[in-house]
Amino acid sequence: MSILIDNITIIPVTGPNSLIEKGYILIDGNLIKDIGKGKAPEGAYDKVIDGTNKVALPGFVNTHTHAAMTLLRGYADDMPLMEWLETKIWPLEAKLTAEDIYWGSMLAIVEMIKSGTTAFADMYFFMDEVARAVSESGIRGILSRGMIGVGPENERALDESAVLYTRWHNQADGRIKCMLGPHAPYTCPPEYLKRVINLAGELGIGIHIHLAETRGEFEDIQKQYGKTPVQLMQDTGLFTQPTLAAHCVHLTSEDIDILAANNVGVAHNPESNMKLASGIAPVPEMLQKGIPVALGTDGASSNNNLDMLQEMRTCALLHKVNTMNPTVLPAYQALEMATINGAKALGLDNELGQLKAGLKADMIIMNLDQPHMIPRYDILANIVYSGQASDVDTVIIDGKIIMENRGIKVFNEEEVLEQAEKTARRLIM
Amino acid sequence: MSILIDNITIIPVTGPNSLIEKGYILIDGNLIKDIGKGKAPEGAYDKVIDGTNKVALPGFVNTHTHAAMTLLRGYADDMPLMEWLETKIWPLEAKLTAEDIYWGSMLAIVEMIKSGTTAFADMYFFMDEVARAVSESGIRGILSRGMIGVGPENERALDESAVLYTRWHNQADGRIKCMLGPHAPYTCPPEYLKRVINLAGELGIGIHIHLAETRGEFEDIQKQYGKTPVQLMQDTGLFTQPTLAAHCVHLTSEDIDILAANNVGVAHNPESNMKLASGIAPVPEMLQKGIPVALGTDGASSNNNLDMLQEMRTCALLHKVNTMNPTVLPAYQALEMATINGAKALGLDNELGQLKAGLKADMIIMNLDQPHMIPRYDILANIVYSGQASDVDTVIIDGKIIMENRGIKVFNEEEVLEQAEKTARRLIM
Repeated sequence: MSILIDNITIIPVTGPNSLIEKGYILIDGNLIKDIGKGKAPEGAYDKVIDGTNKVALPGFVNTHTHAAMTLLRGYADDMPLMEWLETKIWPLEAKLTAEDIYWGSMLAIVEMIKSGTTAFADMYFFMDEVARAVSESGIRGILSRGMIGVGPENERALDESAVLYTRWHNQADGRIKCMLGPHAPYTCPPEYLKRVINLAGELGIGIHIHLAETRGEFEDIQKQYGKTPVQLMQDTGLFTQPTLAAHCVHLTSEDIDILAANNVGVAHNPESNMKLASGIAPVPEMLQKGIPVALGTDGASSNNNLDMLQEMRTCALLHKVNTMNPTVLPAYQALEMATINGAKALGLDNELGQLKAGLKADMIIMNLDQPHMIPRYDILANIVYSGQASDVDTVIIDGKIIMENRGIKVFNEEEVLEQAEKTARRLIM
Repeated sequence: MSILIDNITIIPVTGPNSLIEKGYILIDGNLIKDIGKGKAPEGAYDKVIDGTNKVALPGFVNTHTHAAMTLLRGYADDMPLMEWLETKIWPLEAKLTAEDIYWGSMLAIVEMIKSGTTAFADMYFFMDEVARAVSESGIRGILSRGMIGVGPENERALDESAVLYTRWHNQADGRIKCMLGPHAPYTCPPEYLKRVINLAGELGIGIHIHLAETRGEFEDIQKQYGKTPVQLMQDTGLFTQPTLAAHCVHLTSEDIDILAANNVGVAHNPESNMKLASGIAPVPEMLQKGIPVALGTDGASSNNNLDMLQEMRTCALLHKVNTMNPTVLPAYQALEMATINGAKALGLDNELGQLKAGLKADMIIMNLDQPHMIPRYDILANIVYSGQASDVDTVIIDGKIIMENRGIKVFNEEEVLEQAEKTARRLIM
């Protein structure tokens, strides 16, 4: 299928001044064929989208979430972390069936599509169901089976991860990729992690892990190993594999150097870190050292939404006040974090994260005809500092129109909301 | 006119557990006549609104903004404060005509209505035009002419404030109230402030001022007067009049006691304070001391939107991470700040800020049928932590339906967007 998007403002995220004021985008199959200024080349296109008063940009890459935790949204808030986990989150999670994970993931995917996310990195369980949801919905998913290295399930987690890879890696027209998902340094001892690292090497895939999220983790690992969590991971050999490290809140300056030297991708989750009072990650320092710091929403139980526009905005505001410097993390850098840095952190920047010929046709079209988007002195600043999920009008993933005029075209959205609500009612019965 | 809202979830903000699951609201004229659980009393109503899958709550009270600064949205971002003001904001403001202020205020009002704000406290200039916009649009406005006590305009500012009061106070069916608006301690010396305080006493109205916004202000006032900004204001007699103090970021613990003892209302503007890197106000301490801390968006040039749902959410998240305590500022308290505390800070809590019989019929209806609002374990948490402006379906102010199904019914929204955009283009010519 070929699609022409005409008369459109384009923010390709290929540089701070790369905005094209009146341009066109040609999509052929699942790839971007051409992007340019001015009039589109004559041709016969299967579909023409008029971009007047609209802006196209790369779809957002949510680099850290637990999609099916949408089922826990609003179930428990404003509580101390361990009490929240032990009395609320874990008991409810223990009730989740494979079917629940499917509907919870579908609910997350509806929400992500409707707020402009075109790819997400997920870590959870019953991952077959997440893969099925990704496959059916048209979104792009980078999936890892969460692995706890202590306790009775550690063997099964390794086996299931290998099966997930065999069954789903590069499936759904390549929209699904797999990673290994050891949960965290404090739940996966070095011996277990070494087995994970070996498996990743055998399969040739990356590793997605929670790292240095809380002060408690930092202190406990220090006490147990005499090292920081990042040092421990380096010494365990984790970074010999491509690594996506979520959170990275509590770091020494030496830790930052280690992450940079090993080209570790970081998924920064500002809103989850704020809500759980985990702390503020040293993002400006990491970016300055060249670390591809990307954005993630984390699960809906600690956010409580999966809205990357809000995440981007909160990120830009938070680091300004945290450094007491209003020039830190300007709008364009926040947008990079939500797009191209996400692709880099996932090792997919040869396919995603920018709008340019040859890359996958993953993009969103936002409607500028909104009171909060006027005037149009700086459309990029408007998007980052004032944009809303509901401004996202059209979503194209892998060359396919997944949403148009805010209506999802690939599956029945209403059924998802109903099934998710029904599941939630059963969970708290 | 009488309106019945039926089959609706109600969050009256009269207590943490005041939610009514299936209830009704009766509006008669401009007042709430009755609120209850279950079936509404039989009767003939001019209008019946079906509230199925919806929630009603008090309209948001934006206690600090400069509405017409929407015209400067996105004009200059990510800059050091003084460079931003001196090279960008002030030169553009100098070009603004009365007509511009009208369209800029109307643009702000469209945005505020569409994100659930039913009352706003404004401080700017050409306030006749702001009053005209408030009068025509149906919103509630608490208006003050910004006064700079140094320089040639200080006399005129006092005169214009008195004229504004005479012309507009209690006009538009009482939707307009006036306050005096001395800009800040560093722009209004004590001698000038004393004249302002006297005038406020004569007119029987309150005072809206910027206070302790930046570290620079705190240090400069200390140096010049040997006192904190709050102490200086107390010694000048400011708090003998009802006072709304915007920002209050840089406070000593003695300052907090002074604000509490004098029942000063505080307008907390977390997003503006973050974006301009002003600092983080000690909100939990102020709330604990009983200060009515409310929320404001500040102007769109430092936010960049006027979305009180975002402000509420950011407030709740920011203070959790700032105190490293996830139980600080729970959802209900954030909602109070956006509603009843706003009314208290403005001295209008006998009229606004809650849903109960006898108060003004200022309320919003939000649509719960959204992916990010499912499941419905806790509708209040969903609104605060996951709600979006676009969930606001209906807005009623002073008993009049101003917006229904997201369409504004009182004036032509498209004309406002066009005129505002046209104005902006002229300003940068």
